[in-house]
Amino acid sequence: MVSSDMEEVLDGVRVILVTVPASAHRDLARAMAPYLQAGQIIILNPGRTLGAVEFQHVLRENGAPPGLTVAETETFIFASRRVEPGVSRINRVKRKVHLAALPAYRTASVLRQVRHVLPQFVAAANVLETGLSNIGAIFHPAPTLLNAGWIESASQFDYYHQGITRGVARALERVDEERLAIAESYRVRAVPARRWLAAVYGTRADDLYTAIQRTRAYGGLKSPASLEHRYVFEDVPMSLVPLADLARAAGRSAPVMESLITIACALTGVDWVKKGRTLSSVGLGGMGVEEIIDFVKVGLRKVPHPQTRTTSSWNGETVASDAEAFMGPDAP
Amino acid sequence: MVSSDMEEVLDGVRVILVTVPASAHRDLARAMAPYLQAGQIIILNPGRTLGAVEFQHVLRENGAPPGLTVAETETFIFASRRVEPGVSRINRVKRKVHLAALPAYRTASVLRQVRHVLPQFVAAANVLETGLSNIGAIFHPAPTLLNAGWIESASQFDYYHQGITRGVARALERVDEERLAIAESYRVRAVPARRWLAAVYGTRADDLYTAIQRTRAYGGLKSPASLEHRYVFEDVPMSLVPLADLARAAGRSAPVMESLITIACALTGVDWVKKGRTLSSVGLGGMGVEEIIDFVKVGLRKVPHPQTRTTSSWNGETVASDAEAFMGPDAP
Repeated sequence: MVSSDMEEVLDGVRVILVTVPASAHRDLARAMAPYLQAGQIIILNPGRTLGAVEFQHVLRENGAPPGLTVAETETFIFASRRVEPGVSRINRVKRKVHLAALPAYRTASVLRQVRHVLPQFVAAANVLETGLSNIGAIFHPAPTLLNAGWIESASQFDYYHQGITRGVARALERVDEERLAIAESYRVRAVPARRWLAAVYGTRADDLYTAIQRTRAYGGLKSPASLEHRYVFEDVPMSLVPLADLARAAGRSAPVMESLITIACALTGVDWVKKGRTLSSVGLGGMGVEEIIDFVKVGLRKVPHPQTRTTSSWNGETVASDAEAFMGPDAP
Repeated sequence: MVSSDMEEVLDGVRVILVTVPASAHRDLARAMAPYLQAGQIIILNPGRTLGAVEFQHVLRENGAPPGLTVAETETFIFASRRVEPGVSRINRVKRKVHLAALPAYRTASVLRQVRHVLPQFVAAANVLETGLSNIGAIFHPAPTLLNAGWIESASQFDYYHQGITRGVARALERVDEERLAIAESYRVRAVPARRWLAAVYGTRADDLYTAIQRTRAYGGLKSPASLEHRYVFEDVPMSLVPLADLARAAGRSAPVMESLITIACALTGVDWVKKGRTLSSVGLGGMGVEEIIDFVKVGLRKVPHPQTRTTSSWNGETVASDAEAFMGPDAP
């Protein structure tokens, strides 16, 4: 079935794969909310950073029924390119793609329900781990911004092999260090970009520059034709903005990420922070590290008005009395 | 006389023109200090931002005699390029170049003593005005950093006409707005970059991008061949760093300048803030706007130890009792 009728598409299906740029998640969640049915599973493929949290928050704000499960993957399952509108070429199906549900205790259940069609999906600790494994946050915005004049001069160049020079790679390493430090704050695993290249493409080198230059798969991948490209409009607001905000909530600074965001705003004249995912815009405003970790694990958040305090328990464990369960009874 | 013997060069001359990248001012001041003689005038041509303040501070730290006057110009008096080592081509002598002495009340005296050889020099209010009129801070670092990959790919391109695209020009406008806001805080005049192009080159347009594209004099000016270029190593530490610090002391933010500095550090692996001019490194640490303005006007600074308090007066006006005169008796 090919359809743009949301009600028709969603009716009676068990698992919904959402494969759009993360900048469209908010609008899509709003459009889906009225037609979702209890027990359905939504998988953002991928979520970028804080995707599942934002999606769930927008569903809730728009009256979606309880009993839904939102999950996200750390990267897209296909290595592919659009050939022309409506036609894509899939070069490769990735062998292993991490997935986490929100809350994390539902991850196993989601995997069980999709493994017959998507056996590539394996469990991540929680959506902080998938969000902090967002390698696009490293490889997409910085090289685009640090080649802004080249891109806007309408010259086409090899994005990775020509655009990522020694200096640009040095900047990427700094962004990557900031991402790894944030992951440490939230106690999740994140693989350094250089090790990721070794794992995915088998390219080994002592520094990121050499590793990228040796990655044959990157040969011939062309630069964006303008700054109006998802490397900016998706990866700045949906990757760098939430990463920098997670850093801030953990009392860490992420100066290179913050600078790239500011420069992206200056170059495009768009306020990407306002358009982007912040803890506050995804409903986690004011939370500290421990509260955020609790939230992604068990899906509980502090109740905004103390007079509505409830107590709840999960798996025999009593959970902070100042919290509420969001998604209702566990999905079947 | 051509000589590299500092003592021989400085002996008995009245006016010393210093024409080196601002990143060399500190070392040069240290080398000159032992050989300077009371009454001599040193003109930094140009000073970039806080040049005269740094120069005077380093002279003082290195035991230069009292009775010296340090001044700076807002830009270099020649429109010129080096053709080969030892040979320069002067395209044009600028008709009017602003100059200020530190302290400002000596500006008139400096101009009187140089006008028979350098009639182009005219008075600026003080060294904050010359430092905040530093147009290189706008046109040099941002386009270089936002074309970092292009530059490092060893492609040569027209720096102004190809490197300053619509997006890059948008970023320059933001940097320029920050500079104008700082000037306002310190109550000095600064001409917007777009109006500066109109005044100097006669190019008029509604936006900076169009004005730069219409500036014929910029045609054919080639991009730096690497990031190890004075557009980075001079203009980041000696222009952007002190401008951002002046903003901070005035309680203003200069987010785009700060971001460019951070990005420059990440790209080059050099700590430009540490190598650069800050209020603290030029001896004005901890001062607020009013103290800084007083300092550039009358050359007085707060005495670090209250027990050494002195009172002083100038032109019949009694000056803050908590201050000391720095440069000794007025130069003859």
